[in-house]
Amino acid sequence: MGIESFVGCGNFRLDQQLKFVAEIDKMTQIFRRTMLIDGSRRENDAEHSWHIAVMALLFSEHVKIKPDIGRVVKMLVVHDLIEIYAGDTFAFDVEANKSKAANEAAAADKLFSQLPAEQGAEIRSLWEEFDEMKTPDSIYANCMDRVQPFLHNTLTEGCTWKEGNVSRTKVEARLAVVKENMPELWKWLEINIQEAIKHGWIKDE
Amino acid sequence: MGIESFVGCGNFRLDQQLKFVAEIDKMTQIFRRTMLIDGSRRENDAEHSWHIAVMALLFSEHVKIKPDIGRVVKMLVVHDLIEIYAGDTFAFDVEANKSKAANEAAAADKLFSQLPAEQGAEIRSLWEEFDEMKTPDSIYANCMDRVQPFLHNTLTEGCTWKEGNVSRTKVEARLAVVKENMPELWKWLEINIQEAIKHGWIKDE
Repeated sequence: MGIESFVGCGNFRLDQQLKFVAEIDKMTQIFRRTMLIDGSRRENDAEHSWHIAVMALLFSEHVKIKPDIGRVVKMLVVHDLIEIYAGDTFAFDVEANKSKAANEAAAADKLFSQLPAEQGAEIRSLWEEFDEMKTPDSIYANCMDRVQPFLHNTLTEGCTWKEGNVSRTKVEARLAVVKENMPELWKWLEINIQEAIKHGWIKDE
Repeated sequence: MGIESFVGCGNFRLDQQLKFVAEIDKMTQIFRRTMLIDGSRRENDAEHSWHIAVMALLFSEHVKIKPDIGRVVKMLVVHDLIEIYAGDTFAFDVEANKSKAANEAAAADKLFSQLPAEQGAEIRSLWEEFDEMKTPDSIYANCMDRVQPFLHNTLTEGCTWKEGNVSRTKVEARLAVVKENMPELWKWLEINIQEAIKHGWIKDE
């Protein structure tokens, strides 16, 4: 059972690619803070990556600088892969975020070296572009990555906001990239921040 | 809790898009026959869609007619959406596959009408292109969709093959599109079909 029972075909490169596919199935075991919308359990990284990839097909009309959607979708399906080894870091956990960059770089070394060199480099560079959040594609991708857990929170009684004792200032800081680049979507976020404060899910400070 | 607590911003189109995002979170509740590689449980449609979307970034060098990877990834993240209402149909269940097309068309009507018309039509046409399996993009996408459960089966002691009492003829028919279009990958499949027969996971007939 599992990757140790893999039988290759002797084409080293193809076998390497297939083993990588088996390895990344571990994304289904990396749990995020965010709840599924039915409230049954936390979502995992595979589900989250898929969800925001579909979102990327829907919201590009609302972003100021038009992204290349196909490229954004590629970026989003790989942007959390390094969490297989680095784990998920809760966006509002200040302490954990201090060591995040170093942990994730080490995880990236370990993960992408399992692929043929140029493929590992290509996927790593998509992840790095996402993290730097400077290009139109990565700005739009980051907006999707931030709006999705917000939407889930609004529909699950502010679950992770309450658990993290989160303030309006912190939520707004996290969403600044959306405010700047997707003003129409920001209007919806603003209304729902107010709602969340009213319900006591977000602290008004 | 859930979609009924959605608070809109009055922009009908944007609210519609956001509610669609919430609706498709149900993909996490649609379970396939395929086991996760650690054998812990069946995989769901969100996980499966994500997994094959990442695969599409890795194997295009092995396919005869080069696809547009960004477009394939878009196709793969939406190709199973209609299963939210139609459910998953096991590839080797002959009876269930007779009514599959009609069920799925009805599910597509229900699902895609929840989006702004031209977005619903765009995603529906990606799904239809996938299903027809005629274009280079959809041929490559289908190869990914067929190789992934095969890989999972080889690493989970032939789980769904045994459950379905599946024969070599049926497995090969399902993989014909890979044999024809990705000969290098077919070599790996062929070796692993032989292995599976040796283990008694696939019947040699």
